[in-house]
Amino acid sequence: MGAIVSVRVDMVVDTKDVRDALASVVAPAFALWPQQRNLQTGSSALKLAPSFHITTTIHNAPEDLHDAVLRTLEFLKMDKLGRLVVGRGSGDATVVSRARTLSSLTLSLSEGSEINSIATEVRKALEDRDEAYTLHVPADGSDATMTANTTLGLFRGLATFSQMWYTNDEDTYTINAPFSIQDSPVYPYRGLLLDTARNFFPVSDIKRMLDVMSWVKMSVLHWHVVDSQSFPLEIPGFINISRLGAYSPSSIYSTLDVEDIVHYAGARGIDVLMELDNPGHTTIIHKAFPEHVACPEATPWATYASEPPAGQLRFALPGTANFVADFLAAAARMSPSKYFSTGGDELNTACYDQDAPTQKQLNATGKTFSEALSDFITTTHGALVAQGKTPVVSEPLLNETLVKVWISSENVAAVVRKGFKVIHAASDYFYLDCGAGEWIGADPDANSWCDPFKSWQKSYSFDPTANLTDTEAALIQGGEHSLWGEQSGPENVDSITWPRAASSAELFWSGPGGNGSTALPRLHDVAYRMRTRGVKAIRVQPEWCALRPGKCDLTS
Amino acid sequence: MGAIVSVRVDMVVDTKDVRDALASVVAPAFALWPQQRNLQTGSSALKLAPSFHITTTIHNAPEDLHDAVLRTLEFLKMDKLGRLVVGRGSGDATVVSRARTLSSLTLSLSEGSEINSIATEVRKALEDRDEAYTLHVPADGSDATMTANTTLGLFRGLATFSQMWYTNDEDTYTINAPFSIQDSPVYPYRGLLLDTARNFFPVSDIKRMLDVMSWVKMSVLHWHVVDSQSFPLEIPGFINISRLGAYSPSSIYSTLDVEDIVHYAGARGIDVLMELDNPGHTTIIHKAFPEHVACPEATPWATYASEPPAGQLRFALPGTANFVADFLAAAARMSPSKYFSTGGDELNTACYDQDAPTQKQLNATGKTFSEALSDFITTTHGALVAQGKTPVVSEPLLNETLVKVWISSENVAAVVRKGFKVIHAASDYFYLDCGAGEWIGADPDANSWCDPFKSWQKSYSFDPTANLTDTEAALIQGGEHSLWGEQSGPENVDSITWPRAASSAELFWSGPGGNGSTALPRLHDVAYRMRTRGVKAIRVQPEWCALRPGKCDLTS
Repeated sequence: MGAIVSVRVDMVVDTKDVRDALASVVAPAFALWPQQRNLQTGSSALKLAPSFHITTTIHNAPEDLHDAVLRTLEFLKMDKLGRLVVGRGSGDATVVSRARTLSSLTLSLSEGSEINSIATEVRKALEDRDEAYTLHVPADGSDATMTANTTLGLFRGLATFSQMWYTNDEDTYTINAPFSIQDSPVYPYRGLLLDTARNFFPVSDIKRMLDVMSWVKMSVLHWHVVDSQSFPLEIPGFINISRLGAYSPSSIYSTLDVEDIVHYAGARGIDVLMELDNPGHTTIIHKAFPEHVACPEATPWATYASEPPAGQLRFALPGTANFVADFLAAAARMSPSKYFSTGGDELNTACYDQDAPTQKQLNATGKTFSEALSDFITTTHGALVAQGKTPVVSEPLLNETLVKVWISSENVAAVVRKGFKVIHAASDYFYLDCGAGEWIGADPDANSWCDPFKSWQKSYSFDPTANLTDTEAALIQGGEHSLWGEQSGPENVDSITWPRAASSAELFWSGPGGNGSTALPRLHDVAYRMRTRGVKAIRVQPEWCALRPGKCDLTS
Repeated sequence: MGAIVSVRVDMVVDTKDVRDALASVVAPAFALWPQQRNLQTGSSALKLAPSFHITTTIHNAPEDLHDAVLRTLEFLKMDKLGRLVVGRGSGDATVVSRARTLSSLTLSLSEGSEINSIATEVRKALEDRDEAYTLHVPADGSDATMTANTTLGLFRGLATFSQMWYTNDEDTYTINAPFSIQDSPVYPYRGLLLDTARNFFPVSDIKRMLDVMSWVKMSVLHWHVVDSQSFPLEIPGFINISRLGAYSPSSIYSTLDVEDIVHYAGARGIDVLMELDNPGHTTIIHKAFPEHVACPEATPWATYASEPPAGQLRFALPGTANFVADFLAAAARMSPSKYFSTGGDELNTACYDQDAPTQKQLNATGKTFSEALSDFITTTHGALVAQGKTPVVSEPLLNETLVKVWISSENVAAVVRKGFKVIHAASDYFYLDCGAGEWIGADPDANSWCDPFKSWQKSYSFDPTANLTDTEAALIQGGEHSLWGEQSGPENVDSITWPRAASSAELFWSGPGGNGSTALPRLHDVAYRMRTRGVKAIRVQPEWCALRPGKCDLTS
């Protein structure tokens, strides 16, 4: 770290203090999101050399790292983001014209590190992922350096590096050099759930989401691929389900599409957690396999399902359990992740009460509903475990699983107390679709079931370990924002998600306790940068406020 | 109307009954929005000839009508909307292959009609606009005919005609021929307010909004051009206001831009009602003319303004009144509309209480705040009247004005009882920005001031003449949806507005009392059609529901 010895260092502080110190004077000057664990910055201007380049000292560096470097260079050239102050940084011209020039950034792995692709590293078990990196950007014109134990760490560092720079007419520059950063996430699971079943999203939209996720260091795409309404996933050996259950032949993710998405994600430090929710949320399978679905499209649907259409897998039938085990195993083989989600939520008992085959089976075996369900889970999860997967569920079922807690943040304590590892996905903090009106029927006074809208401020205020002991807190793996697709599609996926979901990206990387007021200028910056990169992230305030940090706070 | 004598006519009913009759069986088959006043449809298939063309019998037809015909032909060719049923109309192939072919549509003006451009017709006084048309599309292959008293009426009819057709692999067709339509709006003012001051919208976005508005027969763009945060309007003689008050040099509507927008709107049957809100909502003018603005950027802003930044025109000073009269007159000369809006809402008295020039003037003249304001309105409205404009305001001030009632639908009766003509814009029904979180500060539990979200069902349920006598009801001119821009920009303007704002387009064209459940299939259709035309209208339900009208209603 010799490079920064000779320059003035304004701040040497930890994450929480950094954020509090980022009052309106300093915050707009740099826009790192999520906030670094340990960040030292200065107040010198520094500009990129026209020949600026990024090199690695890694012998046979993996291709996805090489590609990430190229993308970073492209962002540095194309972002052209004016600094978010009145005049958009035009006042920086004089100091920047006299600034030192940065010629290169060198990426290295720590000695003895294994050289894997970014994809390989992010597909390890959550507890084995190493995303830490150190980054030094001297102010004196000497080369910048980045070090990590993994290519994944280097990839996270590149995301940081690409957020440091503004552009004026002449130069790409910072006014906060030197930078000295040691960074690593508080939680390994920083996710976004995307539902492609209620409405279909073309592959290009999913890729764009993956890009944005990678810019804010998210690590998991929780892909809710199929549901009762449509089954857009082509599973080898089961293609009739998608052939008859997708909205159209062009609304199907082929095996090649899945490979493409998974590959694209991996190269961007994102694990794809596929979710084939069952035994509920499966109506549409009846089009291809009527024998496995109870109460298909039964009416009134509200009696038999939480949303239309009604219909659920006949889990009590051994034939159905084996069928599900087989198609889950086949789907699992499409995914390189260590994890695979089976959902398991919102099972409706009335549907089975009137289903003759189910009742006959329960009577014949003398099993209760719960016992039969437990058998089904054992069989289907067994098939996933045989494929090397850890099942992820939305309700605590068997204890080999990782549990996503979604109904309410108040359910978390009960789940960890049973010893389950937990992913936070509380609807009262992290559901992006809430507060956009009721989509069922024409009642003018109906609101969405999870009203009101969950603002970025709300999710940012979440405390992942509230009311937990240290032992319990250790079970928390992170959390995710969710975009359920009843009223979403390619048309609003950007604007409903960004920059709002960046709030949980920071929460689960930097830890809780961030100050929303000091975060806001950085959130503006990350949103403006998203827009320069072609993503339709919304304005979170009038531009007048974005250019004048703090001036629109209620108290100012 | 001989052409339809020989075919079976299924329905001959008025608007309200048509809508009720459009139960799930019939509704998806045609998707006319807004609903016609008098609509007869049949059940014959009819397809467009490859050589289908539209002719007019009008000697020297105006250019904007000619262009509208070309656009209609382009939509017929490019929409390629599959019918919204399972299979997307693939089941129609057999009947369509045997169908008669429609070769042409002929447009005529009634005998003795004056031949004006569409733009000229829609810029008449509200009470003088004639948008009625009749349209006959025979099922027997004989030519379709459309008649109106004005080109504006023909233009409305073309919007109807372009909504009649679906496309399968082979043909562009309907299965509901013949059509016989007599149509005209219940209210002349069917508007959309767009705020381009909190965040800037490029001209191309405004034009896209105008396109969509025209497809659902909206008649007024209420353009809230400027506000306290920015002044993106170049006014001849006052260009320093925009030069110093716009967000950037590229965030200014030049005089040519305004001409372009107004022309584009007029050709699409839309009058542009420019709004330069004053004397409140004017802070940014202080950058160019500090002498005219009280309490500029005073803090805490919440004491001096309803949103940041504080600052209002010193209306009590005769010099300021004359200045405002002059720039309003100059702006009014940019607009061919008969109307010009001066807003006039949310005036903050605390700002003036501490403003020495205002207090000095009030003391010198012995006038009260209200008296001085009345003088200001007399002067500034006088300048507009001198330009031939009728002032439109957001608060009842003087009785030559048209009043937009926005705070709440409950304020309407009081306003009409004073004899004012009224435009409905109630925030509790028609504000598109409500329910998207609070943009001021970081309070995690704050919601938008007008929570919850106003769903299409809510605005569709509005009754424009509730609690009014017939005399009072006659003062209602129509209404509008409003998109305030604190959290909007080009990124979400489509998705926050469409298809939601289509609900008021139908409400104010077809009249109140529509049934939301039977409207929903048509709303899907109009939204799908918007998407085929490149507009990011959101999904209002899962596609499963869109393809199965009624099946997702709570009661089905």
